[in-house]
Amino acid sequence: MHRIGTLYGVSLGPGDPNLITRRAWALLQRDDAHWTYPVRGKEHESFALTIAKAAGLKVPAAGEALVFPMTHDRHKLETAWSQAAERVLRVLYRGTDVLFLVEGDASTYSSFGYLAGAVSELDADIAVETVAGVTSFSASAARLRMPLADLDDRMAILPAGYGVETIDHLLNEHDTLVLLKVKPLLDDIIDLLERRGLLEHAAFIERTGTPEERVVRDIRSLRGARVNYLSLLLVKNPYRERGPMIRGCAKKPGRLKEVQTDGAQ
Amino acid sequence: MHRIGTLYGVSLGPGDPNLITRRAWALLQRDDAHWTYPVRGKEHESFALTIAKAAGLKVPAAGEALVFPMTHDRHKLETAWSQAAERVLRVLYRGTDVLFLVEGDASTYSSFGYLAGAVSELDADIAVETVAGVTSFSASAARLRMPLADLDDRMAILPAGYGVETIDHLLNEHDTLVLLKVKPLLDDIIDLLERRGLLEHAAFIERTGTPEERVVRDIRSLRGARVNYLSLLLVKNPYRERGPMIRGCAKKPGRLKEVQTDGAQ
Repeated sequence: MHRIGTLYGVSLGPGDPNLITRRAWALLQRDDAHWTYPVRGKEHESFALTIAKAAGLKVPAAGEALVFPMTHDRHKLETAWSQAAERVLRVLYRGTDVLFLVEGDASTYSSFGYLAGAVSELDADIAVETVAGVTSFSASAARLRMPLADLDDRMAILPAGYGVETIDHLLNEHDTLVLLKVKPLLDDIIDLLERRGLLEHAAFIERTGTPEERVVRDIRSLRGARVNYLSLLLVKNPYRERGPMIRGCAKKPGRLKEVQTDGAQ
Repeated sequence: MHRIGTLYGVSLGPGDPNLITRRAWALLQRDDAHWTYPVRGKEHESFALTIAKAAGLKVPAAGEALVFPMTHDRHKLETAWSQAAERVLRVLYRGTDVLFLVEGDASTYSSFGYLAGAVSELDADIAVETVAGVTSFSASAARLRMPLADLDDRMAILPAGYGVETIDHLLNEHDTLVLLKVKPLLDDIIDLLERRGLLEHAAFIERTGTPEERVVRDIRSLRGARVNYLSLLLVKNPYRERGPMIRGCAKKPGRLKEVQTDGAQ
């Protein structure tokens, strides 16, 4: 029977080659697999590929960039995904495994889900393996020494583009916010955090784990500044009002223990 | 000058030894470092240590369990952290580096933040390095092939103990919920998801990446079932109402482009 290749989503972590997992590393050592990686346009570099190069990996000559444009035009996106899926499928049908390299984690704001979905739509029998990776927010929290979540904490991750009112609201609901793509709203967010007395509980990090990494603890200094697309704001709200929690192993509602959490944590 | 050791928070990922990062792996190969790992009580196994063993690593004879009790009693917790910190500090003062092994990611619901905080409180000059790792929810999303977040998605991560009303509310605000510690509330959550027509957008996973991993796609079958502490529910809400988004590079509010997002994504 003719062998058909497997599609691998290979997470490389957010930039530091040392945060590549052993599984991803082993896959990237194989010389019989076909490398693919996302680019925003034909002339663009692939950040995922940059991480692989920084790790000292030999990029196969046959490595192939797949174009995923930065757009919210649904039709353009779907065209790009299905074109990429067709190219991948041709390689898989030759019996060759395909590695799709992604920065960060393949399940978190990654193009891999779309690619894998489009491939499965063309041929539902294709085997797909997603290799999980370290996210930019885990790595940023580690660099900043600001834990993302403790004990009963609630955290939310979102693009800042939802606006300052949404961020203001979500600060009441979560102990930690990870704000992505802060560029167009940064000044407004700084104003909001100042108003709420949260400036000292926020930090900014750009290109975490790369040689260009920038950490800014006094985020007021970012007013009017240019920031990179690969940046995030980590905001903690130690003043969030916490309601009662349901704990323990009880199965029936009547037996559930309601305990007031300690607001001091 | 007398050398003082460095404290490392070594994330091992959620269970699959292949998800250990290269950085963590390199640290765990060293034979001059002192291993420590959290346990819930003196008689308990350390899950972090179990992952290291499953990876084939040789556990040093001097490896030391540090007790972090599963309690919400603030005083008991602080006593445990400061006792652990004192033990760690003694080793660091001998000039030996200390590795604190943690499952998952050291910044995400981990005891490392407390330990590092307590150590820094005793001696602010101690060097601390947090090695980020793969979270259980990234690994679970990969196993389930359910992306956590796409494009403009908002996601929240929280212990289910906040109750069904909170979960109901947060489903209106986020595209993805990661619900942890679902055990005491599982039946109520299943009822909620059934009422909201979200059963087919939810999946359960237990002990992801370990030999005991269990994936349940039809979560109704979990009614009345026993589930492990190391489990989570991943819930997507494709019906969330999305407001306008602010995008682009504009600095002044007047130039911000408000675009209606495509609800189909």
